[in-house]
Amino acid sequence: MSTREERLLARVALSWLAEPGTRTVYRLVERMGPIATLELLLDGGAPDERLRAAVAARSAGGDARAVAADALARAGRLGARIICPEDDEWPTQLADLHRLRLPDASRRVDLETAPPLCFWIRGEWRLNEALERSVAVVGARAATPYGLHVATELGYGLADRDWTVVSGGAFGIDAAAHRGALTGGGVTVSVLACGVDRPYPMGNTALFDRIAETGLLISEWLPGADPLRPRFLIRNRVIAAGTLGTVLVEASARSGATQTMNRAIALGRHALVVPGPVTSAMSVGTHEMLREQPKARLVTGIAHVLDAVGRIGTDLAPPARGPDRPADVLDDEASLILETLPRRGAIGVDALAARAGVDIRVALRKLSMLEELRMVVRRDGGYVLGPPPDAVRKRGART
Amino acid sequence: MSTREERLLARVALSWLAEPGTRTVYRLVERMGPIATLELLLDGGAPDERLRAAVAARSAGGDARAVAADALARAGRLGARIICPEDDEWPTQLADLHRLRLPDASRRVDLETAPPLCFWIRGEWRLNEALERSVAVVGARAATPYGLHVATELGYGLADRDWTVVSGGAFGIDAAAHRGALTGGGVTVSVLACGVDRPYPMGNTALFDRIAETGLLISEWLPGADPLRPRFLIRNRVIAAGTLGTVLVEASARSGATQTMNRAIALGRHALVVPGPVTSAMSVGTHEMLREQPKARLVTGIAHVLDAVGRIGTDLAPPARGPDRPADVLDDEASLILETLPRRGAIGVDALAARAGVDIRVALRKLSMLEELRMVVRRDGGYVLGPPPDAVRKRGART
Repeated sequence: MSTREERLLARVALSWLAEPGTRTVYRLVERMGPIATLELLLDGGAPDERLRAAVAARSAGGDARAVAADALARAGRLGARIICPEDDEWPTQLADLHRLRLPDASRRVDLETAPPLCFWIRGEWRLNEALERSVAVVGARAATPYGLHVATELGYGLADRDWTVVSGGAFGIDAAAHRGALTGGGVTVSVLACGVDRPYPMGNTALFDRIAETGLLISEWLPGADPLRPRFLIRNRVIAAGTLGTVLVEASARSGATQTMNRAIALGRHALVVPGPVTSAMSVGTHEMLREQPKARLVTGIAHVLDAVGRIGTDLAPPARGPDRPADVLDDEASLILETLPRRGAIGVDALAARAGVDIRVALRKLSMLEELRMVVRRDGGYVLGPPPDAVRKRGART
Repeated sequence: MSTREERLLARVALSWLAEPGTRTVYRLVERMGPIATLELLLDGGAPDERLRAAVAARSAGGDARAVAADALARAGRLGARIICPEDDEWPTQLADLHRLRLPDASRRVDLETAPPLCFWIRGEWRLNEALERSVAVVGARAATPYGLHVATELGYGLADRDWTVVSGGAFGIDAAAHRGALTGGGVTVSVLACGVDRPYPMGNTALFDRIAETGLLISEWLPGADPLRPRFLIRNRVIAAGTLGTVLVEASARSGATQTMNRAIALGRHALVVPGPVTSAMSVGTHEMLREQPKARLVTGIAHVLDAVGRIGTDLAPPARGPDRPADVLDDEASLILETLPRRGAIGVDALAARAGVDIRVALRKLSMLEELRMVVRRDGGYVLGPPPDAVRKRGART
């Protein structure tokens, strides 16, 4: 019988020997467990040539078990912990990656999309709880002020409504979404394509430190691992699978962020896309996504995002339309009285009726109705305008 | 036997007695011809109460035949001519309005969508020829500089490719589309909701005069008719039915332009929508259209519009994409090796193969290919990244 520590060590060694997502490794682990899989691979018994070559090449640079043991021993010093699928806090939705098949997959990163073997984590939250109500917000690194504004607002709005914001920690849209979530006092999770000990890019170090304090930094790669380019695409499948939906904010024609979106769509997650000016190169990828992907849905803000991912009755957004005018429900005389009320200070019924050109008995009847609707309030022996609708709604919720 | 002039006079009288689009009138004309229909209505024999009342009310202000005869007599002086469905230049596609049924139609303007009885025209073009290859460009009056820019570009681009631009002559998007078409040296058709002798709005008089010179001003209403508000919606059905597709450029949440779009969709015409910044109130209606109408298709410019309405082989646009990157031609292992190369300094083959997790023989083969492509260069007993592609291309071009 093996212990959790032995199995964990084997998983870490496997994720060092072959890039995360490698299907053959995942299938072997499913079938024979991580320890036997590691033994098989180290004995040169990988069932396919490519994997055998990769294991041999990696092993030439060091002993996989020793590398893993060393990394595990250093974990505490780095402020990191490691979790694997046998732990309670493992997000079960990642198992969906097992059935992920991307259309027109030809590149290795599009084919090797198996679930992760383990995660390195910095931060206090339990990963499954952090991801339970989560939305990914991703997009271009070379974002425009418009995109940064929208991503920040989305991050803030989601955090404000107790949704976790997941992103990749990159410059531009990713960072703006993380920052918005931090400002909103919420949980944000940054999924890295390198070791959690030195998150990339360096320029976001202060941001990563803040995320680690209040949210989570997670990675499938060992501490010290470099952010090699293919790793961003490998990482993206976790962002797509870990969340209920992905929002794409800005993307140029060939943005990596659109790849996260394709993974979200193939996984049956909500694929939400923010449009932008057609004159902006940074919206070419988002518009193309909306044209070519029937599953991609246009969203213009937090209300539409919640409309897609939210649960009916709690997060549902009202249908978009022109600004609601409370006066729409009123008859002519009530509207007139409401319009006639001074913006500041109280007014008596007589004066109000005279100014509005309405019979005093009619004025009294309409004022009583407006009071019931909380549109006017009695004060100082007269009437004043009621609080704005938002304030009314919040007060209503508390009672 | 009646003459064309007698039938035309009856049609003009009918379009004065009842608003254009009235189904009952259209059906009677189809069944018994315009002259008998006019006699029936003037004798108080309209088959429904509402029409009977309308005819009576209008007749109290004048004799329908005399009004029509007077208008026809003045036509030449106004520089206008009148055409009807029996004329060669009548656009046959307008007959599709016969089967137009708008979903959730409750307002009269949404129910009374029968084909026109006749058109008053200013301009030299034959109407059917002008509309043969035509696209409508419509949108908000209170357009933003962004919307005006996009509408002007669309108008110009369509005209430049010999497409007719149809719109309503309003301030904002309509005027920008007409102006773009005029600048592009093309034909533009303004469909009015009032008499062609005094097109509304007055502020666009110079524009209307230019349109009448090189394109067409058309209207279902008699000269002198006022642009009453319901008439804009009645008019919109002609813009939708006369063209192959309608492009909506900007629209607020409660815009009339979205009604043209709904008519285009119900008629099976192409419904094309230009997105905009989600921060702009003038794009709320366009985004809502893209969210709620499965038939509405996002377009970002002339290429997408032609892609929808154009004929295959003549107007087709290339798919949008980003600049080609040389690394796109590489296989996974070559890409991995390229990515693994340090940004600065040389690295030996052994170390490189180990870091990339690639067999050393494979690494050598790929490095040799990358050298051939000038993506890597041998130096200091190892390999370094080659010069950036631009430098390579320029050097290559010179030799």
